[in-house]
Amino acid sequence: MSKVFDYAEVAKHNTAESCWVILYGNVYDVTKFIPEHPGGAKVILQLAGTDATEEYDPIHPPGILEENLSEEDKLGTINADTLPSSEKSPAETGDVAEEGPRDLETILNIDEIEEVATKQISRKAWAYYYSASDDLASKSFNNRVYRQILLRPRIFVDCTQCDTSTSLLGHDVGLPIYVSPAAMARLAHPDGEHGIAQACEQYGAMQLISQNASMTPEQIVADAKPGQVFGWQLYVQNERAKSEAMLERLKKLPAIKFICLTLDAPVPGKREEDERSKNIASNLPVPSAVQGGGSTSTTSEDSKTGPPKNMGMGQSLFWGTAADLTWKTTLPWLAKHTDLPIVLKGLQTHEDAYLASLHAPQVKGIILSNHGGRALDTAPPAVHTLLEIRKYCPEVLDRIEVWVDGGIKRGTDVVKALCLGAKGVGIGRPALFGLGAGGKEGVARVLGILKAETETCMRLLGVGRIDELGMHHINTRAVERDIYDGPANLERPSLWAKAKAKL
Amino acid sequence: MSKVFDYAEVAKHNTAESCWVILYGNVYDVTKFIPEHPGGAKVILQLAGTDATEEYDPIHPPGILEENLSEEDKLGTINADTLPSSEKSPAETGDVAEEGPRDLETILNIDEIEEVATKQISRKAWAYYYSASDDLASKSFNNRVYRQILLRPRIFVDCTQCDTSTSLLGHDVGLPIYVSPAAMARLAHPDGEHGIAQACEQYGAMQLISQNASMTPEQIVADAKPGQVFGWQLYVQNERAKSEAMLERLKKLPAIKFICLTLDAPVPGKREEDERSKNIASNLPVPSAVQGGGSTSTTSEDSKTGPPKNMGMGQSLFWGTAADLTWKTTLPWLAKHTDLPIVLKGLQTHEDAYLASLHAPQVKGIILSNHGGRALDTAPPAVHTLLEIRKYCPEVLDRIEVWVDGGIKRGTDVVKALCLGAKGVGIGRPALFGLGAGGKEGVARVLGILKAETETCMRLLGVGRIDELGMHHINTRAVERDIYDGPANLERPSLWAKAKAKL
Amino acid sequence: MSKVFDYAEVAKHNTAESCWVILYGNVYDVTKFIPEHPGGAKVILQLAGTDATEEYDPIHPPGILEENLSEEDKLGTINADTLPSSEKSPAETGDVAEEGPRDLETILNIDEIEEVATKQISRKAWAYYYSASDDLASKSFNNRVYRQILLRPRIFVDCTQCDTSTSLLGHDVGLPIYVSPAAMARLAHPDGEHGIAQACEQYGAMQLISQNASMTPEQIVADAKPGQVFGWQLYVQNERAKSEAMLERLKKLPAIKFICLTLDAPVPGKREEDERSKNIASNLPVPSAVQGGGSTSTTSEDSKTGPPKNMGMGQSLFWGTAADLTWKTTLPWLAKHTDLPIVLKGLQTHEDAYLASLHAPQVKGIILSNHGGRALDTAPPAVHTLLEIRKYCPEVLDRIEVWVDGGIKRGTDVVKALCLGAKGVGIGRPALFGLGAGGKEGVARVLGILKAETETCMRLLGVGRIDELGMHHINTRAVERDIYDGPANLERPSLWAKAKAKL
Amino acid sequence: MSKVFDYAEVAKHNTAESCWVILYGNVYDVTKFIPEHPGGAKVILQLAGTDATEEYDPIHPPGILEENLSEEDKLGTINADTLPSSEKSPAETGDVAEEGPRDLETILNIDEIEEVATKQISRKAWAYYYSASDDLASKSFNNRVYRQILLRPRIFVDCTQCDTSTSLLGHDVGLPIYVSPAAMARLAHPDGEHGIAQACEQYGAMQLISQNASMTPEQIVADAKPGQVFGWQLYVQNERAKSEAMLERLKKLPAIKFICLTLDAPVPGKREEDERSKNIASNLPVPSAVQGGGSTSTTSEDSKTGPPKNMGMGQSLFWGTAADLTWKTTLPWLAKHTDLPIVLKGLQTHEDAYLASLHAPQVKGIILSNHGGRALDTAPPAVHTLLEIRKYCPEVLDRIEVWVDGGIKRGTDVVKALCLGAKGVGIGRPALFGLGAGGKEGVARVLGILKAETETCMRLLGVGRIDELGMHHINTRAVERDIYDGPANLERPSLWAKAKAKL
Repeated sequence: MSKVFDYAEVAKHNTAESCWVILYGNVYDVTKFIPEHPGGAKVILQLAGTDATEEYDPIHPPGILEENLSEEDKLGTINADTLPSSEKSPAETGDVAEEGPRDLETILNIDEIEEVATKQISRKAWAYYYSASDDLASKSFNNRVYRQILLRPRIFVDCTQCDTSTSLLGHDVGLPIYVSPAAMARLAHPDGEHGIAQACEQYGAMQLISQNASMTPEQIVADAKPGQVFGWQLYVQNERAKSEAMLERLKKLPAIKFICLTLDAPVPGKREEDERSKNIASNLPVPSAVQGGGSTSTTSEDSKTGPPKNMGMGQSLFWGTAADLTWKTTLPWLAKHTDLPIVLKGLQTHEDAYLASLHAPQVKGIILSNHGGRALDTAPPAVHTLLEIRKYCPEVLDRIEVWVDGGIKRGTDVVKALCLGAKGVGIGRPALFGLGAGGKEGVARVLGILKAETETCMRLLGVGRIDELGMHHINTRAVERDIYDGPANLERPSLWAKAKAKL
Repeated sequence: MSKVFDYAEVAKHNTAESCWVILYGNVYDVTKFIPEHPGGAKVILQLAGTDATEEYDPIHPPGILEENLSEEDKLGTINADTLPSSEKSPAETGDVAEEGPRDLETILNIDEIEEVATKQISRKAWAYYYSASDDLASKSFNNRVYRQILLRPRIFVDCTQCDTSTSLLGHDVGLPIYVSPAAMARLAHPDGEHGIAQACEQYGAMQLISQNASMTPEQIVADAKPGQVFGWQLYVQNERAKSEAMLERLKKLPAIKFICLTLDAPVPGKREEDERSKNIASNLPVPSAVQGGGSTSTTSEDSKTGPPKNMGMGQSLFWGTAADLTWKTTLPWLAKHTDLPIVLKGLQTHEDAYLASLHAPQVKGIILSNHGGRALDTAPPAVHTLLEIRKYCPEVLDRIEVWVDGGIKRGTDVVKALCLGAKGVGIGRPALFGLGAGGKEGVARVLGILKAETETCMRLLGVGRIDELGMHHINTRAVERDIYDGPANLERPSLWAKAKAKL
Repeated sequence: MSKVFDYAEVAKHNTAESCWVILYGNVYDVTKFIPEHPGGAKVILQLAGTDATEEYDPIHPPGILEENLSEEDKLGTINADTLPSSEKSPAETGDVAEEGPRDLETILNIDEIEEVATKQISRKAWAYYYSASDDLASKSFNNRVYRQILLRPRIFVDCTQCDTSTSLLGHDVGLPIYVSPAAMARLAHPDGEHGIAQACEQYGAMQLISQNASMTPEQIVADAKPGQVFGWQLYVQNERAKSEAMLERLKKLPAIKFICLTLDAPVPGKREEDERSKNIASNLPVPSAVQGGGSTSTTSEDSKTGPPKNMGMGQSLFWGTAADLTWKTTLPWLAKHTDLPIVLKGLQTHEDAYLASLHAPQVKGIILSNHGGRALDTAPPAVHTLLEIRKYCPEVLDRIEVWVDGGIKRGTDVVKALCLGAKGVGIGRPALFGLGAGGKEGVARVLGILKAETETCMRLLGVGRIDELGMHHINTRAVERDIYDGPANLERPSLWAKAKAKL
Repeated sequence: MSKVFDYAEVAKHNTAESCWVILYGNVYDVTKFIPEHPGGAKVILQLAGTDATEEYDPIHPPGILEENLSEEDKLGTINADTLPSSEKSPAETGDVAEEGPRDLETILNIDEIEEVATKQISRKAWAYYYSASDDLASKSFNNRVYRQILLRPRIFVDCTQCDTSTSLLGHDVGLPIYVSPAAMARLAHPDGEHGIAQACEQYGAMQLISQNASMTPEQIVADAKPGQVFGWQLYVQNERAKSEAMLERLKKLPAIKFICLTLDAPVPGKREEDERSKNIASNLPVPSAVQGGGSTSTTSEDSKTGPPKNMGMGQSLFWGTAADLTWKTTLPWLAKHTDLPIVLKGLQTHEDAYLASLHAPQVKGIILSNHGGRALDTAPPAVHTLLEIRKYCPEVLDRIEVWVDGGIKRGTDVVKALCLGAKGVGIGRPALFGLGAGGKEGVARVLGILKAETETCMRLLGVGRIDELGMHHINTRAVERDIYDGPANLERPSLWAKAKAKL
C-alpha cells in the first residue's frame, strides 16, 4: 500500500535538488527528470511542490507519465483533505460556469460556436487557438476572401436530391469537409482528439491527426468504424530517427491512410496573443503526446543556444522541428520509411503546386494553406493560390488532389472552394472551438451546421452532387484582380515532360 | 344562446386529451384538430387552455377557423371579466405605445419608416421581415450596389413636367414601383395585404400577392378600383392539385393579371434572426391563408421525417413547397392550368434570363431577385444580373420585361434600375415596414416618399418621362468591374433561333 | 412722437384679424400684409403678438420692411421693460456662449472652423448649411475624391518664391480660391455677405453673391476696393420680369463683373436635415433680400397647388425658381438683358461642358458643381467631371474657363483641382462656417488657412506659380478607374465646327 | 567660490531689462543674450526668474551654454532648499511614473513600443514625434501600403541558415534596417542620439544623424566601434557658411561615412498636432545642437518678417533652412566642400530618381521618403515610388543604391521593401519611441524585434540571404493599379547618355 502524504510535506520539495509534484492524486519525485523535460526545467520548477494535475493533464496523452517515470519515482498518494482549496482540481471545487453549458441546438453558426467556446475554455487554450501571426492579416483575409466571391444560383433545377458525399484520395467520405490537424485538443475539452474522431464518424468526415495531438494516435483511432479515414500529420524532427520510428508505429494503424507532411511552418510564426499567455504556456511540458518524454536535441543553428525564454505555446511545439527539408532529400527519405501516399501541406504558390504535381504518384495531394494565418502574416489565402494554379498551371488539378483550409465559416465557403477546384476543405479552429463549446457533441454540431449549410447552398445553386460544382457557379472577379500577376516561374519543365511521358 | 365560460374552466383543458382555446371571445374545443394542424401539435398545445387570439389572429385569414372547425367544436363564449389581465388582447388592455403613433408626415425616408416600424411591431414580426440569410451579405449588398452607381445630371433641360407613369405587361400604372409579394402582412398591422392594396390604388401602383399572404386573395382585391393591377405569386406545392385548385380559383379574380412563379427559393435560406425567434414562431399555425388548414404532406426526400423542429417562420412557410421544378416540366404544366401570362421571379444569372426569354410569349417577364437576400447569401444583387444581361445577351431586354427587386431605399435607386433597363422595380420590406409604421397610410407614405424622390431625381437628371431614362444617365463603372466575366454559357442556341424564327 | 406700447397690449393682437408684431423695438400692424407674405400666412401668425425680431432679422435685408409696410402700419414703439425675458433679444439678455468666442488663431483647419461654428450658430442655420441631399453621399464624396488623388513632389526646385495670384475671366485675383454663392449668410453672423466681401478684399479673393443673400447687392459691394471682383448668381425666376429687373439693377454695380447662372438645381434636392428643422424654418419669411416682398407666383405645374407644407429652408428658397431653362431659349434671353459675361454653374457631365464651350464667347466659364451635394445625391464630384472633360473633349479647357467647387477642405485640394485644369476653386460652406465662427475675421481666417496651405503645397511640389501646376504633379489613377466610360454623346458637332470656324 | 542665491532673489529678475534663469543649479544672467536667442525672446522671458533646466535640457546639447554665455554671466548657484517644489527637477522630486518602467521583454511589437513611450514621454515630445501633415493621410498610407502587398512563401527550402547582414554604400552592416535622421532624441530620453548609437552598435545597424540632433555629432559617435557606420543629415542653411563649417567639422569624424542631403522638406509641412503644443514648443530655444547659439538670419522672402508666432516645434526647426537648392547649383557646391559620397533624401517620383542616377558617382544613393508623412500630405509612400522606378526606369536600381523609409512596423515590411529593390530600410519614429520606452535598451528592443521578425519572414519565405529576395516573393498587384500611370517625363536623356558613356 502506497504511502499517503500531507500537502505540507510535498510543498517542501520545491527545488531543483528535490522536486516533487502531485499528479492525479499521486506524489511523484521528478528531480531526475527535470533536465530531460522537453519543455525545459523552468516549467517543472514552477510547479515544484504543488499539485500540477491541472497544468499537466490537458496537454499530455495518457501513458506518457508511466513511460517517463520509473516505479520508484512514484512516492505515494496525497491526502486530499490537506490540499489548499486553490490547489483542488476544477471538478473537486465544482468550478464550472454557473449558467451551465449552452444547448448546442441553439448555436446557429460557426461564429457562435467560437463565442460559446471562448467563454468556456481557459485563457491559455483560447490564446493558443485564436492566435495568428503578427497583425492577423492573413487570418482575417482567409475568411474575407470567401465573402468577395459571389455565387450564381440557377433556377428551374430539381433540387430535391442533394448529396454531399465525395471521395478523398479514393476513399469515400460523407463530406468534402475534413478536420485539419490541430494541436492540443484536450486544452479545449477532455474528449480531445478522440472526441473529434467520434464526431467525424457520425458524419463520415475525414480527420487529420496532429503530431502535436494531446492523445496518442492509437487512442484517437481506437473506436474508428470501418471506412473511417484518418491522415497523420508529420512534422519531420531534427532527430530523423524519431520520425522514422513514428512512421513505423503508424504501420499498425490501418485507419491512417496517408501522411500529411506539413511544410508551411518550418519555423513558427509570431503569434503574439499566444506569447502573451506565456507565463501559463511556459508551464506546459511540451512537446506533446507522440513526441514522447525524451529530450529534444536539435541540429539547427538556432538550437545551439537552447530554446528562447518566453516562448508561446505555438513556439514551444515547434521546438525540435526540422527546418532543412528539401524537394531533393525529403521525399526520397519518406519513400524509404512509408508506403502511404503523401499529401503536402502548406503550399502557397502555383510554382510549388506545380512542383508537387511532378512528384505524383508518391505525392497524391496537396493542401493549399497558410497555416490558418499562423505562419507568415500577409501570406495569401488558399483561394488566391487556387486561382493562381488555374491561371498558370491548371493541369495540376488533374494530376493530384488539391485541398484547402483556412477561413471556412459557412457552407457557402465550402461550396466556393469546391467550385474553384478543391477536392477537400479543412476546418481547424471550428473543430477545436466546437470541442470547447461542447466536447464531441460540439464538434458534431460544427459538422452538422456546415453540412446543412453546404446542402442549402447546393440546392439553391441548383446542384445535386459535389462533382457538378464548377467555376460557372461563382463570380471570382473581385478576387482575381488581386492575385499574383508576375512571371510564371515554373521550374524544371524537363522533369514535368518526363513525368508526362511516364503517364 | 351560447354558453358562457369562466377562464378558470377553460384553463383546465390544457392537454392533448382535452384541448380548449379562446379565440375572439369564443371558446373552442380543438382536441380533434390537433393532429391535423399544419404547424404541428406542439404549437396548439402551448396555447391550450388560454386565450390564443393574439397569436392566432395576425397569421390566419378570416374564415379559416370556420373552414376547419365544425359548429359543435364551438363550445360557447368567454366571460371577459374572468380573463387574467395578461391574457387580455392589446385592444382590451389599451396596450399601445405610450407616445402614440408617429405623425407619418415627419417620416422622411425609408430608413426612418423601418426605424418607426421596428419600435411598433412585435419582435417575431420584425425578425421575420428583417432577417436574411447567413451573414446578410446579399441583403446589404443589394442596397450598397445602388450607392456605387453615379448619376449624370444634364443641365438646361425643361423639367417643369415630370411623369412617373409607365406600363407593366401592357397595363398602365402610375409608378414603375410595385409591391413585391411579401408574406404575413398582418403580422405588421391588421390592415394587412388589403391595406397595401388600398395604398397602391392611391398611387396607381401594382401589387404582387404572396402565396403566404395573411388574407385571402378575394379579401385583398375586394376593393380594387378599375385598372388596378395585381399579380399572384405562386409557390408550386408538392401536392400539385392544391396549386391547380388555386389557379382555378384565381380565374374568378380578374384584377389578378398574371402569375409570378417564384424560383429563387426552392428551399428556404438560412435566416438566423428568424430562427432565433423560433419559440414564438413555432406558435404560428403555418401555412397561411390560401394554403388552408389541411395537412401539408410532401413528396420530397426531406419531408419523410416531418418538419424539423426549431424552424423559423421563414422555414415553416416553405414547408410543402416543391423543389423539383424544371424548365421542361413546369411551364407546360402551368400552361394547362392558366391562361395568364407568367412572370418568372428569382433569376440571378444572364443564362437563366436568356433561357426565360426563349419561353416568350408564355413568359412575359422576369424578376431579377435574390429574394431580398433571404435565399442564398452572397448571391448577386439584381443590378449585377442586369449588367450581365446587357453584356452577354442584351436582346433579352427586347423580348421580355425585366423587373428587379431588392435593396431599393431611394428614388435614385429606382431611377438607376430603370436606366439599366428594368421596367419595374419591386419593394418588399419597405411596404411591410410601412404597414408596421402606420397601416395602409404607412404604405402610402412609403409610396409617396419614393414617388417624390423619383420625380426629384428625374427632374434633376433633366428627364421628364420614364422611357427617356437610359445608360447615358448613369456611371456604372464601379459596379461593372465586379460582375461575372466568365464564359457565356448560353445554352440551346437552336431553340433561340427557332424562337427568333417564330417572330 | 410715436406711441409706446406695453407688451401685454401687443400680445392681444395675435390673430389673422388683428396681427401685430414687434420688430427692432417698433410695433407694427401686419394684418394686411399676411396674405402677401412670400413665406405664407402661417409663418407670420406663429409670431403674432410677439417680438419677431430674432426670427426676422437674419434672413431679411435692411430696407425690406419699409418697402413692404406703409407708414401707417407702424403703430409705435415697445416699452422694453414690459418684454418677458424670453422675448428679449440675445444682445439684451447677454445670451452668448459662456466660454466666449474662440481665438481664431488657434483654429488650424477648415474642419475645426466648422466645429467651432456649429457650436455658435443656431440649429436652423447649421441645418441649412450642413444639410445635403438624401444620404449625403455626394457631399461626402466631394471631399473624399481629393484624398484619392496623390501628389508628386519634385526635389531640387528653388521654392523661395511662391505666388498664389492668378486671373479669373481676365481679372487679377490674389487667390485661385473664391467664395461660392451661398445663401443666408446673416443666419451665421450679422456681418453677413458684407463681411465675406471684406475678408475677400483682404486676400484679393473673388466673391459670388447668392441671389438668396441676406443683404442687398448694393450693401454687399458697398465697400469694395478697386480691383475687387464680384459675380452675381442668377436663379431665373418664373416671373422673368423680376430677373430682368435685377439684371437692370446690376448695371449700376460695376464691381459685379459677370453673371453666374445656376443650373444644377432646377428643383431643390431633398435635404432632410433641413426639413427636420422645418418648424423653425417655416418661420422664415422667404424669399430673401433681392427677391423682395412681393408674392412669388409661379408658372410651373407644381406651383398650382401652392408651396408644400413642411418645406425646409432650402426648399423655400427655391420657390418661384424657373425649371424651364433650355440651351435654346435662356442664353439668348440673357443676351438681351445683360452684356456681362456668363458663367454657367452646375455642369456635371462632359457633354454639357462641351455644349457650353460652343456658346463662347457669351459663355466665358463654367463651374463644375453638384451644388455641394445639395441637389442630386450620388451625382459625381467636380473632379470626375474634370477628368471626363480631359478624356472626351479636352479642348473645352482651352475655350472657356473651368472652375470647380464642392468638398474643398485643404490647400492640397485646391492644388489638385488646379493641376486637373481648373482655373478657380470655390468654397461655400467653409466661408459660411467661417462667418459663424468669427464673423468677417472668421472668413478671413478660412482664406488665410487655405492660402497658407496652398502655398505650402506648391512649395513642396516644387512649384512657384499657379500656371506651372499640371497633370504631372498628381496621380489620379485611383479616381480615373471610376469615371464614366460610356459613349461620348457629344452632340451638335456642326455647331462646334461653326464655332471653330468663327475663331 | 561662487555666490549662492535664494530663489526669491532670482525670481525678481523676470523682465527683459534683467533676466535671470537657473540652469543645472547655477544662476545665469541672460539679459544680453535675449535678442540673440534663435528661438526668439519670448521663449526666454516666459522662463525669466525661474529654474529653466527642465525646459532647456532635453533640446540643447551639452556645451552650448558655455559657448553662448561668458563667464561673467554666470552669477552663482541656487540654494536648492529655497526652490518651490514645483520648480524642482523630476529627479529631485522623484517624479517618475508610479508603476515603473515596463519590462522591455514583454513588449512584442513596434505598436506596443509606441504605446509604452506615449505614456512615458512628455506631451510636447509625443506631439513632435507623432505629428504628420494635415490629415495624416500619407503617414497612415506609408504603413497601409505594406499591408496591401502579399508574400509568396516557398516550401521545401532549407531555412536553417538565415542571415540579415548586407552592405550599404559598400559598408558591411548587420541589418538592412537603419535609423533615420530624427531630431530631438533627448526629448524622449536623456540617452538621446548617443543611446541610439549604442543600440545600433549592438545590432550592427547604421545610423543617420539628424542636423537637429539634441547632441553634437562628436558626442553621438564618441563610443563608436570600428566598422560602425554613420551618415550625417544635411539641411543646407541659408547662411551657406554655416553648412560649410559643419562639413569641415565632419572631416574629423571618420565614423561618418556619407552626407545625407534632405530634400523632401524645403519648407515645413503643416503638422497640426505639433502646432497645438506650441505653447510648450515655443519654450524651446531652437535650433538645436549643431546649429549653435548664433542668430539664424535667413535670406528667403519669408524670413523678412521674422519667424511666425505659434510655430510648432517642427516649424521652428526649419527656420533658416534653405529653400533654394537646385540640381545645378547644390551638388557642385557640395563637391567643393566634402569628398564624402552623397545620399539624396526625399525623392518621391521616378523622374527625380532618374535624375539622381545621372549624378553618380557623386550621388551614391537615394532615399525614397515622404518625410514620414510630415512634409506634403497625400504624397506617395516610398513603395509607390519604388514601383514607379521599376516601371519607368529600372536601370536606376543598378546605378545607385535605393533606400526607403516611412511606415515600417514589421519585419514583413522590411522584407517587402527589399523584395521591391530597396537596399536599406529606415526607421524613424520606432527608434525615437524605443528611446522613449526605455532609453538605449528600448532602441535595442526595437531593433531586436525587427531583426527577429525579418528573420522569421525570410525563413518562412524560404530565403536565407538578403540578396536572394526578389519580386517573385511578393504580390504587389493591389498596389500597382494605384501607382502613377502618366507620361514618363524623363528629362535630359543626353546627360544620361553622357553619364553612360563615362562608365
